[in-house]
Amino acid sequence: MADNSQPVPRGPPTGSLVFPGALRDRLEPLLAQALIDPVAHYQHLTLTFATSLDSSIALAPGTQTALSGGMTKGMTHYLRFKHDAIVVGVGTAVADDPGLNCRLRDAGGYGGKGLRGQPRPIVLDPKCRWQFSASSKVMDLAAQKKGKAPYIICTKEPPEDRRALLESLGGKFIILDPFSDDGKLPWKQILHALRREGLNRIMVEGGRTIINDLLEPQNHELVDSIIVTIAPVWLGQGGVVVSPPQRSDDNGQPIAAVRVSDSKWEIFGKDVVLFGKPT
Amino acid sequence: MADNSQPVPRGPPTGSLVFPGALRDRLEPLLAQALIDPVAHYQHLTLTFATSLDSSIALAPGTQTALSGGMTKGMTHYLRFKHDAIVVGVGTAVADDPGLNCRLRDAGGYGGKGLRGQPRPIVLDPKCRWQFSASSKVMDLAAQKKGKAPYIICTKEPPEDRRALLESLGGKFIILDPFSDDGKLPWKQILHALRREGLNRIMVEGGRTIINDLLEPQNHELVDSIIVTIAPVWLGQGGVVVSPPQRSDDNGQPIAAVRVSDSKWEIFGKDVVLFGKPT
Ligand SMILES: NC(=O)c1ccc[n+]([C@@H]2O[C@H](COP(=O)([O-])OP(=O)(O)OC[C@H]3O[C@@H](n4cnc5c(N)ncnc54)[C@H](OP(=O)(O)O)[C@@H]3O)[C@@H](O)[C@H]2O)c1
Ligand SMILES: NC(=O)c1ccc[n+]([C@@H]2O[C@H](COP(=O)([O-])OP(=O)(O)OC[C@H]3O[C@@H](n4cnc5c(N)ncnc54)[C@H](OP(=O)(O)O)[C@@H]3O)[C@@H](O)[C@H]2O)c1
Repeated sequence: MADNSQPVPRGPPTGSLVFPGALRDRLEPLLAQALIDPVAHYQHLTLTFATSLDSSIALAPGTQTALSGGMTKGMTHYLRFKHDAIVVGVGTAVADDPGLNCRLRDAGGYGGKGLRGQPRPIVLDPKCRWQFSASSKVMDLAAQKKGKAPYIICTKEPPEDRRALLESLGGKFIILDPFSDDGKLPWKQILHALRREGLNRIMVEGGRTIINDLLEPQNHELVDSIIVTIAPVWLGQGGVVVSPPQRSDDNGQPIAAVRVSDSKWEIFGKDVVLFGKPT
Repeated sequence: MADNSQPVPRGPPTGSLVFPGALRDRLEPLLAQALIDPVAHYQHLTLTFATSLDSSIALAPGTQTALSGGMTKGMTHYLRFKHDAIVVGVGTAVADDPGLNCRLRDAGGYGGKGLRGQPRPIVLDPKCRWQFSASSKVMDLAAQKKGKAPYIICTKEPPEDRRALLESLGGKFIILDPFSDDGKLPWKQILHALRREGLNRIMVEGGRTIINDLLEPQNHELVDSIIVTIAPVWLGQGGVVVSPPQRSDDNGQPIAAVRVSDSKWEIFGKDVVLFGKPT
């Protein structure tokens, strides 16, 4: 007679990822103290993205391009686990239909309890351009309790149907005062809004516009750490390029746009990852 | 009474560089067999250059920009030691007034015997645009026996005074049949010409035009290895960018311009170096 008391053997949860202990041990010393041992009362902004050798984050505008290998993909999800919120621009939300959750096996929905380790997705969408529906990946994941519903930062009243959908899943629109006509919000204002929501460990993932913006000199002081994965491929001309505006010295000569201080490299599989701080 | 038989203590030769044994031990296993144990009868092309995180090799056209740190600079000179020839385009010769020699302490002119380990500089200058003189760095170094005089590959008769100067230093013009009106020579023809001169281990260093050209699909098979140094800095928009033309698949969708096979990363000081082969 079969022993029905034995638990039915189960495979890992569908879509789950691993980031093995040996890699965690290499990563942890490179992370800011704020992520390892979070102190509730101060905010930490990590800017992180993956590029090709020619600094492209996608083959073409509006195209999602798989760049990072398995190990750095695992790393990204481990970083998501360590942050309270993941910020993307509406361009990325529209182009990629991203999941913006943590799929590690210790995260809620993938083996962990409740919504453990699931960051809050934040979408910067000043003009409410993002036409999401219940089948958008991030909404679907929230409905399945495999991630949190997003907070959408905007500067005008959102359409009622989308607001209702978002709120039914536990998300919301955060309406901020527009700072300029183009709807661009100062990063200080964005960070302040997130702080009011209790979101302190902020991970900004993309896309191009957001990244180039944060790499501009006036924003450097807001970026506490950068984590850039580089994959061994040239995507080629026409890609979505990260390259901030150049600076010039007192004589009008061009100087480097951003230097990276405290820089450290780590090799993860086929990719290399740069850790540091913009200066 | 002072002992005059003691040799006068001397510092290292002016301008010399070191690439310590410990770094050589890390580098050697990453180099092609053709460089470690050269076989006279087959040619090996190494494409090597240094970029910023945004794939710039210089801040602006016509500007030499120090990118690599001390360790990767030492590595470049070690690579020069291991090659028979260093190839640059006339754009680089004009913009950078480069030395194109090996300044390691084991190289001729810097501690080594004769012209030991000094590669032959090769300048691709189809239209004889390079207005060098005796005070151009590479000519001056050749006169001082700290490097070899260049071979200049062109497609027309050079001016007599420059020819005389070049030949007096041991260099020469190599006149090839023009392949097309724009003076661009097929790489096979260039490599063949170098082969006739007994130059087998070829290191191509730049600049942008030459690098992007060799990274085009039709030239991949000619490139036996690539060695790319990445420095932790974004030079910013307006830089001299390496990014080859994109390819597209059978459906006209863009695909990556160049993938790197057998890729290996090595961290040298502040920089990271990618070793591999374009595919
Ligand atoms: N490789 C990677 O790591 C990675 C990661 C993420 C995304 N991506 C790629 O990046 C591409 C998308 O980039 P993108 O430049 O089109 O879009 P994006 O940067 O995601 O979003 C840009 C939009 O966000 C809004 N925005 C930006 N800064 C703002 C500010 N300070 N205040 C308020 N709103 C602000 C603006 O919306 P309005 O125009 O409505 O004002 C802006 O047009 C996609 O191809 C995606 O695949 C790659
Ligand atoms: N970071 C680094 O590792 C590094 C290394 C080297 C150079 N650089 C930088 O690169 C920049 C120079 O780049 P560049 O694009 O102006 O010049 P370049 O690539 O050095 O030279 C281009 C020129 O070489 C000739 N040429 C190219 N391909 C040829 C072929 N197949 N056959 C015959 N001739 C050929 C052409 O001359 P014609 O126009 O006369 O036909 C062409 O205009 C400089 O700013 C320099 O500092 C950086």
